[in-house]
Amino acid sequence: MNYFEPLTAFVDLTDGTIPEATAVQRRRLVDLKGLFADSQAETARLGENPLLYEVHEAAEIPKKDGHQLFSTTILRPGTVGDEYFMTKGHYHARSDRSELYYGLAGEGLLLMQTPEGRINAQPMRAGAACYVPPYWGHRSINTGLENLVFLAVYPADAGYDYGTIAEEGFAQIVVTGPEGPRLVPNPRYRGGGSRA
Amino acid sequence: MNYFEPLTAFVDLTDGTIPEATAVQRRRLVDLKGLFADSQAETARLGENPLLYEVHEAAEIPKKDGHQLFSTTILRPGTVGDEYFMTKGHYHARSDRSELYYGLAGEGLLLMQTPEGRINAQPMRAGAACYVPPYWGHRSINTGLENLVFLAVYPADAGYDYGTIAEEGFAQIVVTGPEGPRLVPNPRYRGGGSRA
Repeated sequence: MNYFEPLTAFVDLTDGTIPEATAVQRRRLVDLKGLFADSQAETARLGENPLLYEVHEAAEIPKKDGHQLFSTTILRPGTVGDEYFMTKGHYHARSDRSELYYGLAGEGLLLMQTPEGRINAQPMRAGAACYVPPYWGHRSINTGLENLVFLAVYPADAGYDYGTIAEEGFAQIVVTGPEGPRLVPNPRYRGGGSRA
Repeated sequence: MNYFEPLTAFVDLTDGTIPEATAVQRRRLVDLKGLFADSQAETARLGENPLLYEVHEAAEIPKKDGHQLFSTTILRPGTVGDEYFMTKGHYHARSDRSELYYGLAGEGLLLMQTPEGRINAQPMRAGAACYVPPYWGHRSINTGLENLVFLAVYPADAGYDYGTIAEEGFAQIVVTGPEGPRLVPNPRYRGGGSRA
């Protein structure tokens, strides 16, 4: 029998990068165009086009049932209008697949949503192990002043559905407030009603 | 549709415990009786019966395909004869299930073995993400002077097969040496030959 060989990926604890990553994806504001609620603020920053986050993939593992994939994400601090920097967010293409996030540094929220638009937000920080159960769309949001860094582990056959979030958005967004981050309805949300 | 609700388990970064764990398993020497190579040294310490490790289970998650389980393990430093403290080690009952270990503190080895007795050892330390592919039995070994602490994430339907390791052992063991830990053949190994 041919066995897939064990391996170790070393996370640089000073910045969350994986120096020997097999792939690094960088997402700039243009890659999230249309996802921030304040479209004027979004447009105004497109020239600068700031880096929002990078994902370091630990290894080339077969995308098959039984395997797991893992990566680190480094999400920068900042806002577009009063909305915090965030990841694109996705459902899994195999929607019955879960994901585990383990916080390494910084502070933020893991925003989750059912296909019907019901929201759940969990805190992210070093030592927080946040569980995204099957079927929940998920997005990370940096509400702090430093990078938000976390490890993600998920079934290798989960796949990504970015399209639903790109079309519908999340039902709520996370914005700055006088007493800290707060969740408010997303004026650009276009889901839920027909699917609820 | 009934969705399983998101949750967060907070790991105490000072000691690796999960203060709100839904279950804590403690393994003492008697629970590993017969697994250490030096049976005289093992017997001599059974009166004292030291605590070897504890596992903190983060949450009660359905043991179903698509979900993932996660826990922390705190493995004490020490030896039985010249063999380092270790976990029992197991294959998965669903042998095609993988596991991801993320090191939080201490230093050690993740010892893995195919059913035929081929060994692979990966380093464990803070920031090391060690991947146990499907089919590999796995055991953690504390080769340091402090607790070895790690997070484990695995498919919720993986299950445990402790019996094969209890009967056959690992083909190699990790012992102290003048130049540090070293792997040597396990004199009590009873597998491989017939299965290779």
